[in-house]
Amino acid sequence: MNNFIFQNPTRLIFGKGMIAQLPNEIPAEKNIMITFGGGSVKKNGIYDQVMEALKGYKTTEFWGIEPNPSIETLRKAIELGKEKKIDFLLAVGGGSVLDGTKLISAGLLYDGDAWDLVKKGSSTETIPMGTVLTIPATGSEMNNGAVISRHETSEKYPFYSCYPVFSILDPTVTFSLPPYQIACGMADTFVHVMEQYMTKTNQSRVMDRWAEGILMMLTTIAPLIKENPQDYDLMSQFMLGATMGLNGFIGMGVPQDWATHMIGHELTALKGITHGASLAIVYPGMLRTLFEKKHDKLLQYGERVWGISTGLPDSRAHMAIDKTEEFFRSLGLATHLSEAGIGDDVIDEIERRFNERHAAYGEDGDVTGAVARQILLNCK
Amino acid sequence: MNNFIFQNPTRLIFGKGMIAQLPNEIPAEKNIMITFGGGSVKKNGIYDQVMEALKGYKTTEFWGIEPNPSIETLRKAIELGKEKKIDFLLAVGGGSVLDGTKLISAGLLYDGDAWDLVKKGSSTETIPMGTVLTIPATGSEMNNGAVISRHETSEKYPFYSCYPVFSILDPTVTFSLPPYQIACGMADTFVHVMEQYMTKTNQSRVMDRWAEGILMMLTTIAPLIKENPQDYDLMSQFMLGATMGLNGFIGMGVPQDWATHMIGHELTALKGITHGASLAIVYPGMLRTLFEKKHDKLLQYGERVWGISTGLPDSRAHMAIDKTEEFFRSLGLATHLSEAGIGDDVIDEIERRFNERHAAYGEDGDVTGAVARQILLNCK
Repeated sequence: MNNFIFQNPTRLIFGKGMIAQLPNEIPAEKNIMITFGGGSVKKNGIYDQVMEALKGYKTTEFWGIEPNPSIETLRKAIELGKEKKIDFLLAVGGGSVLDGTKLISAGLLYDGDAWDLVKKGSSTETIPMGTVLTIPATGSEMNNGAVISRHETSEKYPFYSCYPVFSILDPTVTFSLPPYQIACGMADTFVHVMEQYMTKTNQSRVMDRWAEGILMMLTTIAPLIKENPQDYDLMSQFMLGATMGLNGFIGMGVPQDWATHMIGHELTALKGITHGASLAIVYPGMLRTLFEKKHDKLLQYGERVWGISTGLPDSRAHMAIDKTEEFFRSLGLATHLSEAGIGDDVIDEIERRFNERHAAYGEDGDVTGAVARQILLNCK
Repeated sequence: MNNFIFQNPTRLIFGKGMIAQLPNEIPAEKNIMITFGGGSVKKNGIYDQVMEALKGYKTTEFWGIEPNPSIETLRKAIELGKEKKIDFLLAVGGGSVLDGTKLISAGLLYDGDAWDLVKKGSSTETIPMGTVLTIPATGSEMNNGAVISRHETSEKYPFYSCYPVFSILDPTVTFSLPPYQIACGMADTFVHVMEQYMTKTNQSRVMDRWAEGILMMLTTIAPLIKENPQDYDLMSQFMLGATMGLNGFIGMGVPQDWATHMIGHELTALKGITHGASLAIVYPGMLRTLFEKKHDKLLQYGERVWGISTGLPDSRAHMAIDKTEEFFRSLGLATHLSEAGIGDDVIDEIERRFNERHAAYGEDGDVTGAVARQILLNCK
């Protein structure tokens, strides 16, 4: 096991009706900016619940944080927030609204252009933020990470700042999600777990079991949720699992990969592919490309998550990859670049970008531009 | 899944050599009281490492916090701390030193006798404390719980106050632990997990898998550690697992039991049985007494943790209990009251105490004095 330091201060407030707890979590004197996405929260009643809970608070609304939140939009929020002297942020939405609000949180205390902060990669000077999560997927509700895009140049980078002070997760808010968003959220959660798990064997027995536990939960509930997307218990399992998939709890002392995410971010930046969908395309090809180095962990994964216990080792490891791809397909997601209309020009550009920034991703830092090309060729 | 609120602010600093990180964690101006147990840390080098790291700090040492820390001892520490105007506590030891220091932390800000706080059950007004853990067992390093004894009256009660600001876990400090302490620590961790898991089925898929993951880790490494008590990797797994067993991570949204702990505390208070050893005696008898209500979860536990998948349900559930008892015995621990020289007078007294305080423990609040008697009769 590697040495590590772990801390996660976010207060998780979970369950039906918990949005009404907002006044217990935000001091009465705070001047709040509430950030939103496109407006679905007005249709499903979440907006009304939030505003009802915040009666008596001084609030400013900022609407329009889009999927893959852009610096272009966030600059406007930061400008408004400075003008209104905002000292608390409440993000109401999915991972994109939460991610964007993390940059706003840092941008409000920064004099220059917030894109500087994204290029720097992190900022610890932030104003406090809370969240009301509406889509289980990114884990942003209980970590300090964000991913920010710049439309102008088709760039997309990770950015680290504050942990939310609190996050409210009411599974009933997911009842109105379109099936495609649920599918992408499941793929996102699945690959978050895999990025922290599918590396080397014999690192941490507990972390391995915990990662496998989330994966098994997902593969079991996915077909059930397809039939019953408004089942409170099933959506609770999914919502809690998505948060646990990327809050550091399964990453203690273990090597981590994240190459698939870095390639997926480029597909989103260049072609607008939804984040979870980009991972479903890249992940099976990544496993096939790095088959040798991930061989032993593939055997463990295949046996524990998919019950693959007979056959020659190579055949079992391949079967584990096939099962993974089948899982994504069962969600209704594409698993090939061609299905998403992505051609060689994109592969060339991703290799070029990786080379330009001397990319060295993956648990051993050996996923370079050339390896990324190979992975993408295996995703065609 | 039940509604819940989860937050755990403790900073976990894990790995070989991490004691040297102390100066990064305690502000230079702090006036620190360092609390210790009986002196083993002077023999195994931990004392020297701590004092080396704290060179330049203003420190006061308090020695002699005993196993099952007593109010009688802790009053002296509180008196000394007030006199020295201590504003930071560093507990260096096992769960007892940590638990005792949690009461000191509250007692330093309380004008009356600290036993009032124990009787009240909790106190949120505390001065900050950090820990250097030397025995994996109680989980006190990453939760806000403590158990405090009063020798004068043979009483022992839970008490809740502060989470440690940080806890340093260096697995090498466990290399000099006597086998009996390791065995008791393993039983303690095992039962902590069971108290949060062995209740009802279909509550939380992820929490169930996580609990089972810690149990499987323990049952796998226990025989290996017996052979290799100085194996860094094995002791890392144990140390991390013990912390994860009682820091709230596996208790989100699930019903919890804790009846065995309440009975075990009485055995310790009345007869001085080591905490982990008391749990090994009570737990199998508790399962046999409450066999019907825990039947379905016993089947799940038996199959997933012990691989019991054939036979009639009742026989499988009984086999799961037998396996649990065998596990405790494999650690070298007694599993019957008679082996510990405990007779009917103690059973009578525990029933009397439970009745006096209108005890209603367990996940359904139905473990009364009469049920506790039945459990203890099944432990004879």
